[in-house]
This record gives sequence, structure tokens and C-alpha cells, in this order.
Amino acid sequence: MTALIETRQWIYARRPAGRVGREHYDLVTTSLPADIAQGEVMLEARWFSVDPYMRIQQAERDTYDVPHPLGIAQRGGVVGQVIRSRDARFAIGDWVAGYTGWQTSAVAHGDALTRLDPDEAPVTTALGVLGMPGRTAWFGLMEAGKPKPGETLVVSGAAGAVGSLVVQFGLKAGCRVVGIAGGEAKCRYLIERLGAHAAIDYKAHRDVTALTAAVRIACPRGVDVYFDNVGGDITDVVIAQIARRARVVICGQISQYDGGLDVPPQGPRLLAHMLYQRASIQGILARDYTPRMDEMRRIVAPWVKAGEVVLHETIVEGFEQLPEALGSLSQGANLGKLLVRA
Amino acid sequence: MTALIETRQWIYARRPAGRVGREHYDLVTTSLPADIAQGEVMLEARWFSVDPYMRIQQAERDTYDVPHPLGIAQRGGVVGQVIRSRDARFAIGDWVAGYTGWQTSAVAHGDALTRLDPDEAPVTTALGVLGMPGRTAWFGLMEAGKPKPGETLVVSGAAGAVGSLVVQFGLKAGCRVVGIAGGEAKCRYLIERLGAHAAIDYKAHRDVTALTAAVRIACPRGVDVYFDNVGGDITDVVIAQIARRARVVICGQISQYDGGLDVPPQGPRLLAHMLYQRASIQGILARDYTPRMDEMRRIVAPWVKAGEVVLHETIVEGFEQLPEALGSLSQGANLGKLLVRA
Repeated sequence: MTALIETRQWIYARRPAGRVGREHYDLVTTSLPADIAQGEVMLEARWFSVDPYMRIQQAERDTYDVPHPLGIAQRGGVVGQVIRSRDARFAIGDWVAGYTGWQTSAVAHGDALTRLDPDEAPVTTALGVLGMPGRTAWFGLMEAGKPKPGETLVVSGAAGAVGSLVVQFGLKAGCRVVGIAGGEAKCRYLIERLGAHAAIDYKAHRDVTALTAAVRIACPRGVDVYFDNVGGDITDVVIAQIARRARVVICGQISQYDGGLDVPPQGPRLLAHMLYQRASIQGILARDYTPRMDEMRRIVAPWVKAGEVVLHETIVEGFEQLPEALGSLSQGANLGKLLVRA
Repeated sequence: MTALIETRQWIYARRPAGRVGREHYDLVTTSLPADIAQGEVMLEARWFSVDPYMRIQQAERDTYDVPHPLGIAQRGGVVGQVIRSRDARFAIGDWVAGYTGWQTSAVAHGDALTRLDPDEAPVTTALGVLGMPGRTAWFGLMEAGKPKPGETLVVSGAAGAVGSLVVQFGLKAGCRVVGIAGGEAKCRYLIERLGAHAAIDYKAHRDVTALTAAVRIACPRGVDVYFDNVGGDITDVVIAQIARRARVVICGQISQYDGGLDVPPQGPRLLAHMLYQRASIQGILARDYTPRMDEMRRIVAPWVKAGEVVLHETIVEGFEQLPEALGSLSQGANLGKLLVRA
């Protein structure tokens, strides 16, 4: 008789039309066979990554991928510890990062896991600055944004995981960096902790006219690079202020995820303005740069070690909180990287 | 006493809100002093170029340039013959291309003129395939579109001056080329004369749903490169069908020029889709490539000489017709390059 290991799972059960929450999931307890196959590793999850892209995958239509299937555990990035191993590269107790989703214990093939060295960097950095958000920020900014010293970089969602890294990478690149975020606390964080040249609290502006004035004041020579995490009105305002040959990097459109994923909402047409300014737009996705993680780590890991690049972590306690945590992303409530501790 | 040369001019006098026409111009007869300065050339215009960009410059707001001033002759490309010269590079009777605008005779500095060799290519090609439209099509497609053999290229405004060249350059690049144009005659021209693989008559489709079906049928593997001259509904439909890592080249948005230049109209938001497909949009303008004309001529001029690349000319007779000819551009009435003969 095979021994069994109990695992709890959040099963993605119903597609959200608007904001995602607990009502779209079933919490189940099930068992994993304790005997794993050659090459496999069993892990216990310690940290769950909660990221905006997960909401995109819940659309009914194909987005950057086919829709997340119903009836399986919610997919997502995880950091955990090995509890069984039939892969010589992993020993019990080892820290690993993988993509095993919302389950307290999971089995994965060793090839799908990355071994982490907790002495090199805190293990949660594998879900942050040295993981998917870091890769997104680094390659999105450097490859698609092509920042040059002295240029003006505007970042929307600037206090989020990717945004706050883009702010710091932009400063390293010699840009004048303007962050847009919601609320005074986030704006103070951008300036006082991250070193942004200016921060705009979009919530403090009554309409797009007022926000336009704020962007103009913060960017007197226009916007050379716009790194966009949010879309919607904020992006309409910034794109209207782009400078000649500006680069617009589309990393996320989080303002649209709770409503506009299946049928695009209306907004001002922007292509004529792109033409006049001979500007470019580039959609980017972290996975396209996965094979180049070594290149990014070589540059960014020493900055992390030296404390020159930081990523604030907002930690939610308890596996039970995962659906609510995911839903909270579109509410702009969190600073930096949102993690759920198992 | 200085002798005088009579010249007729179309003075750009009133900004159009919608379609431009004769009511926005004053036709005047004035005199040029017959004594020109050292380094100057006087020419008599033979051919006037009529191009969509001229309507953009008539917007009240800055577009790719400051607005065209009121009270001066309409600017535009011209081919003419030298009638006086104080520049040793130009002799009386020489054919030249310049930017002297809507006047029957004009004085220009020699540096602002290009000498044409009528034995090398018909002089009107300086306003077409070997001039601004050719440069736009060539660099827009090759530099921003980056076409690869076997890829699907969709061209809107495909029977226009730039569009019909993009169709042919796309075929040279080994693409499967789909042209979108208005009316059966233009579509037959695209297939039978230019060699496009497919042509879509947007006027034959009752709505965007029907047009979407037509684009899907013509592009079963999606759209890798979209060269856009028109904007609006047609572009909404094509962008929804772009393939992964597609390149969208924004060359013109002529559907918007008669109404949407000063305040952008609404349309479906497209940035989320750009993100999912990791696609790019690049606005392009011919003047950015002017220093590279030699590079383009080296490749394209032999094709023109061999008859491998053609540009149909629609010729309107008479200087008096210039304002109406410009207004006709947005009506989609013309095939190929629109010229007015003096």
C-alpha cells in the first residue's frame, strides 16, 4: 500500500467576469502518493507568488496563452522546500523555486525546479527581483525601452513589483525617472526610498486634464520611455505626452483586467500620435526572456547583494488568503511584491 | 528696373475642419523678380505631388510638424524645369525635383533641388517610387516591418502610392501579401497587376464582423506584418488578427484625417492585445530616411528600370485642380500615385 501525503489545493473552478475572489475557487484537501517517480521531487510550499498575469490567464479568450483550465489547482510561482527527492540535484530541505501553483505540497520534475541558495539571496527574491518580475523589468526596460542617459522615463504602477524595479533600473541607466502610483504613501516611497526624481499620485488628480498637467510639469521635455503596467486613462495621458521617437513598453494593463479582457473597452485612438512622433510600442512578456536569466543575474544580483536595488515585499499570511490576495492586485492596495506565506 | 516673372499660387488661407477643398485656398497671381541671387535657381513647375501628409499638416495642433502656416503657398513636392540659374550645377531646361509647393514658377536655392536624369527614369518617379512614397514604403517595410520570407504581410490602402509599393516590396521579400483596398477594380489591380496573393475589398463587407472573417480567411496563420495607411475600423480588424511578435507599421491614418486630427476619436483599446502577442507598433515618417535615399535607390532603381516594380499614376490635368485633388485623397478615388500636371 502506498503512503499518501495530504495537500490542500485552491482549485480554479469558475471564471470571473470582474474582480477575482474566493467565489471562483474551491478549497480541497487531497492526497499525493508518497512514492514519487525517478527524476521527481516533492516540495512543501513556503511562499506563493501573486502576480497580475494570473488574472489575464483567467480570460475566456486566448490571451498570451490559452485560458487557464478550470478544475485544476491555480497555477503560479512558488518557493518551497524539498521533502522527498528522486533527483540527485535536490536534497531534502533544499530551497527550490517552481511553478507548482496553489497547493501546499506538490510533485514536480527536477527539470522544472530551480535550486536556491539562501546564503546568496533571500529565497523570496526568486519570486521577485531575481525572478519573473525582475526579468520583466530588466529586459522590458533595457531591450524594449532602450533608455539612454538623460532621457525621461515614466513608469505607471511604479510602486508595484515590476514598476518599482523599473524605477531603479531606470535610475541606474541614467534616466530622469517619474513614477505614477496611487496614494501619497506610495509616492513618498518612490521618491524617498527608491530615488525617483518625481512621483505623481494619480488619485490626487480629479480628471485626465489635471493628470495631464501633472505629467507635463514632471516631464517638461516630454516622455522618452513609458513603461506601462496599468493601461486605461493613465496611459492615454502619458502617450499624449511622448517625445519624438519615444518607446512605449506594454508590460501590463492591470486597469483593464477586471472588465476588459474579453471585449476591449473603448479609448482614444492613439496610432496617429504614434505616427507623428515616430514612436514605438512593444508588448513584452517575461517568458520570452527566460533563456537570458543568466545575463540578467550577472548584472542585477550584485546590485541586490549590495542593497542598491530593493524590492519591498507585502506579505499576506496564510494559504487560505490566496484568492483574496490575487483579487487585491487590481485594487492597487499593495506596495512592491505581493507574497502569500503558506 | 527689374523684370518680373508672373507666377500663380494657391495660398493656404483657411484651416479645414473636415475635407479640404478649394474653399480653404485663395488662387492669386503674383510676380517673382527675374533677377535671382547667386546660388538660386528659378523653375517652372510641371508636376505637383499630392500626398496625404499634406492634410495632416493642416491640423491646428502640432502633428509631426508645426501646423502649415496660413497665408503662404501650399507646400508640397514638385518636379519642374529650370528657367533661370545662378548655380553651376543647373542649366536652363534641366529637370529638377524640389519642395516649392503650389506655384507655377518658383525660386529655390540650388541645394534644395535634386537634378533629375529623364533618361534614367521618367521624371515623375522622383515624386513616386524613387521619391518620398518609395522611401516611405521601402524603409517603413524593411526597417520597421522586418518582413521575413513566408510571413504574411497585410497592407491597408494597398492600391495607393505607398501601399502599392509596399505590396511589391513585400513580394520581393518573399512574403505572402494581402492587400486591402476599396472596390473591385483596385482589388483586381492588386492581384492581376501587382501579384498580391489576396486582396480584400473592404467596401464589399457590411461591417467589422464580415471584414474580420475576410481577413481570417486571407490570413489563416495570422498577420505577421501589418503596414497601415488608413487606421480606423480596418486597422481595428487587422490588429485583432496579428500573430505572435507581429510588427505593425503606422505609415498613415487617412481615415482619420478629415475629422480626427485635433481630437482623437474613440476606438477599441488595443494595448492589451499587443501585450499578449508581444507585438510592436512603429510610427514612421519618410523624412527620417532622407539621408538614406542612396541606399534605397541602389536596390530599387534597377527594379524600376527593369519594370519589376511599378507605380500607377493617376494624373489630374491643370494647376487649378490642386485643392480638389488633395481633398480627393481621403475619398479613396485614386489608383496609385496622384499627380497634378501644370
